[in-house]
Amino acid sequence: MRTNLKENETQIRNLVEDWAKAVRNADIDAILAHHADNIVMYDVPKPFQSVGIDEYRKTWDLFFKYTRPGVFDFHELHIVADENVAFCFATMKCADKSNSEDFVELDFRLTIGLKKIDGEWTIIHEHHSVPGE
Amino acid sequence: MRTNLKENETQIRNLVEDWAKAVRNADIDAILAHHADNIVMYDVPKPFQSVGIDEYRKTWDLFFKYTRPGVFDFHELHIVADENVAFCFATMKCADKSNSEDFVELDFRLTIGLKKIDGEWTIIHEHHSVPGE
Repeated sequence: MRTNLKENETQIRNLVEDWAKAVRNADIDAILAHHADNIVMYDVPKPFQSVGIDEYRKTWDLFFKYTRPGVFDFHELHIVADENVAFCFATMKCADKSNSEDFVELDFRLTIGLKKIDGEWTIIHEHHSVPGE
Repeated sequence: MRTNLKENETQIRNLVEDWAKAVRNADIDAILAHHADNIVMYDVPKPFQSVGIDEYRKTWDLFFKYTRPGVFDFHELHIVADENVAFCFATMKCADKSNSEDFVELDFRLTIGLKKIDGEWTIIHEHHSVPGE
């Protein structure tokens, strides 16, 4: 039986919002909870790409070394879902609240690619960036 | 009848390779041939986002103002396709051959989101970026 596509969209919205919440909580295990072993990540800072779940985890180790985000929020989130493949794109705001004297805000762009694996939506690609000048 | 998923992948590969060829040829009409009116583009330089086909076209006007790429090639292209939704991600190389004395190379990351509309694969999202420091 085909899952209702609206239900897929809801499942993905919940997954992605839980992921963003995990970032706000600096909870790395929760951040990685729905990622494929072979995820390919294009991140805001270098490296040029991170391939596989171990390299993906390292991008968050680097992130939390410099940032304690109290804010990691969607301005707008678009979800396009089929039965077994989906993608999202979003503009987002990140803000470091580790030091209220030095409150850094960063707007960035996010694209996520997902595949349903063994009945569960799984992130197999992420692309985070800020534009250059 | 469900299209064979391999056939979808082949259609998308051809579409994306034709798009890259159109960039090499600086042929803006061919670049825009398979894009949705409401495409959302996150580009390498500012603006932060470009919404709609007219703003998408402007990103290429800006690009060709500064660049005549003889090279706009895939290092590797990954395609994940379902029946009606698909995405691709790729590492790419762009090189400006307009002046052989001043040959500029740029590696960048690309993610594309597609939807089948009226039986034709259509690009509804692009995300191009280079990492920061």
